[in-house]
Amino acid sequence: MSEAHPFRIGLLGHGTVGAAFETLVAERSDAIAAEVGFRPEISGVLTTSRGDFGDILERSDLIVELIGGTEPALDYALRAMESGKHFVTANKQLVSRHSEQLFAVAGAAGVQLRFEAAVGGVVPAIRVISETLAAAHIERVHGIVNGTTNFILTAMERTGASYAEALAEAQRLGYAESDPTDDVTGADAAAKMAIIARLAFGAPVHIDEVPHEGIEHITPDDIAYARELDLSLKLIGSAERVDGGLSVQVYPAFLFADHPLASVHGSFNAVTIESPAITEITLSGPGAGGSQTASAVLGDVISAMIPPPFNPPPATPVPLVIDRESAFYMHVEVADTPGVLAQVAEILGMQGASIRSVVQKGLGEDARLAMVMHPVLESKFRAAVEMIGRLDFVRSRPRVIRVIGETFE
Amino acid sequence: MSEAHPFRIGLLGHGTVGAAFETLVAERSDAIAAEVGFRPEISGVLTTSRGDFGDILERSDLIVELIGGTEPALDYALRAMESGKHFVTANKQLVSRHSEQLFAVAGAAGVQLRFEAAVGGVVPAIRVISETLAAAHIERVHGIVNGTTNFILTAMERTGASYAEALAEAQRLGYAESDPTDDVTGADAAAKMAIIARLAFGAPVHIDEVPHEGIEHITPDDIAYARELDLSLKLIGSAERVDGGLSVQVYPAFLFADHPLASVHGSFNAVTIESPAITEITLSGPGAGGSQTASAVLGDVISAMIPPPFNPPPATPVPLVIDRESAFYMHVEVADTPGVLAQVAEILGMQGASIRSVVQKGLGEDARLAMVMHPVLESKFRAAVEMIGRLDFVRSRPRVIRVIGETFE
Repeated sequence: MSEAHPFRIGLLGHGTVGAAFETLVAERSDAIAAEVGFRPEISGVLTTSRGDFGDILERSDLIVELIGGTEPALDYALRAMESGKHFVTANKQLVSRHSEQLFAVAGAAGVQLRFEAAVGGVVPAIRVISETLAAAHIERVHGIVNGTTNFILTAMERTGASYAEALAEAQRLGYAESDPTDDVTGADAAAKMAIIARLAFGAPVHIDEVPHEGIEHITPDDIAYARELDLSLKLIGSAERVDGGLSVQVYPAFLFADHPLASVHGSFNAVTIESPAITEITLSGPGAGGSQTASAVLGDVISAMIPPPFNPPPATPVPLVIDRESAFYMHVEVADTPGVLAQVAEILGMQGASIRSVVQKGLGEDARLAMVMHPVLESKFRAAVEMIGRLDFVRSRPRVIRVIGETFE
Repeated sequence: MSEAHPFRIGLLGHGTVGAAFETLVAERSDAIAAEVGFRPEISGVLTTSRGDFGDILERSDLIVELIGGTEPALDYALRAMESGKHFVTANKQLVSRHSEQLFAVAGAAGVQLRFEAAVGGVVPAIRVISETLAAAHIERVHGIVNGTTNFILTAMERTGASYAEALAEAQRLGYAESDPTDDVTGADAAAKMAIIARLAFGAPVHIDEVPHEGIEHITPDDIAYARELDLSLKLIGSAERVDGGLSVQVYPAFLFADHPLASVHGSFNAVTIESPAITEITLSGPGAGGSQTASAVLGDVISAMIPPPFNPPPATPVPLVIDRESAFYMHVEVADTPGVLAQVAEILGMQGASIRSVVQKGLGEDARLAMVMHPVLESKFRAAVEMIGRLDFVRSRPRVIRVIGETFE
């Protein structure tokens, strides 16, 4: 197999992932040459201090972009593809903000645009969604697509630590950045879900259209009470068809123990793809890490070696649905007097919300009420919660968290 | 997109999966035409009572084989590919017994040979292993690749039922055949692991070389005691590199609770692929069912629509390793007298087996000893167990089950 043709890769960026990618290419080039018939080699490296983009472009069959951010990454992406070069990136900002332009240019130029590493780390979510798409009508994707928040929530669940303590531990171990805002607010997950929704449903979804709640306000009590109801807390990205539209959101949610995402712990990522024909597929693996991300990038490079371009067709606009049915968990502290549960239940019932399970616990003069509702329209449930919060005997602001699994067939 | 070229599929077999496949093609043809540019259509159906193979072959671009068994399936496969037609099958017997011949003919003819549905139901194991192979050096694959046995074991774990009771329940619900031999003995899983090993390691592995133990002798006690050690029982197919060779086996094994396969319940299948670069990827989903299998077949058909053939390179023979290191669980009933544990531990220690955790429980005059060992060479551990079984105070034949998770990094 020594006669394998060279396949020249221009590498933009040389941080942790870039360096790991260069090492991996050297390690795997023989095996890839034997398998695919092309031998990958790094034809040039661009960093802030060395290399010239035009020069590297000329000497490459494919550009790997590991710089991050949208500029100059977008400019490089467009110039590469317009010059007939394949483009592989791990840049979720770039893809979630400029997907339509990128897909259009890739399609017109007949080159491959691949971005597995932009979503879900080593989990081949993009690949499986793209390949599943034509064979099955995808109804819903649920994902744990941020390893930092899953690490924090797992630590809180296992040790009873507060959010602040668990975050500090994640930072100490390198699972969270010193400024964790992008992760803990759900913004990172929202960008990834925008990309997933674009591919799963063929609809243009911009990152700014994805509402997201983070995990900063989750308390150890939320997690402890919910465990009594056999629920575990995850930061969930959901993208699903709802009444002819789409709902794409990121929020903390409780999962029933038998949901396939409930057992995804630590910094792992996972995605569940649901379709009537296939029922569901769940993929899980490490969320990030230099060598893992480099592997996902190299997987894309290998796929791009093998023609033809398989780019998604143009997106069709679909309305984004904000208010939708969901199951909910509610926790509230109340005075321990007769008739409390009855009044709460009556208000819920007036809004069409019915109780699936409830735990009531005395606490001196007060009691705690934790309940899980059957699916109900979010606006109606929020209205009921608002009313409950104003009742005389209620001693705390009701805490509400979505629950996943109940509607899961 | 109405100008999409027709892509003609000859369908061999029209049972549950065949009928579901025909329906699915009709449902999805518009979406596939829009996505891929080819419109799939059934060009002919062969059953025992209708159709002529030569005739269908002539009118098809691709043959889908859903007959099962090796004859006449092998003959049809070879004739189809030699005529330049792609070949998609759900037939694990065919692929596990004749992989080298099939790959060679596909490679020579320049056609695609795909068989995702032969392994793991809807779980895209073959696809991900094939696509991961070039980018990462796969060290190990662990799989739950038989839905019937996982259903039975889950039922035993949840209800305390005996093997016979759980099997009867599985038969009543349609998860087990009236003759369940192929499933419960591990033979079905062995065929699937032979296929997985061939692809993951590029080594020729014949189904008859895969040792397999089934679940017929598992007792409710095994499951109940092990739960105290936080273990759950699965029928595991394992394929891994060991000392320059390969080990491919099927056996019931205990999994530690945090192993990614430990939470795969009911009739679901799952596969964990391990590699130093990616750490691990786990895929899970329904094990079988007509529409699920039909979806996997259609996914292969769509991939085959898109050239070029991507067939694995010729296999390289690698020695199959039978005796290897593993963690073990051992349970034995003993007289409740002093020094028992010390003697058992001494025999184990002489064979280099060290105890990871132990539960000892009194039971009138007798006691039960359940222990989990650190990894030890199987032959040495079995020798120790043989000696333990002959001790005066031992009241039962020691029960030994492999444990997975301990060596899992």
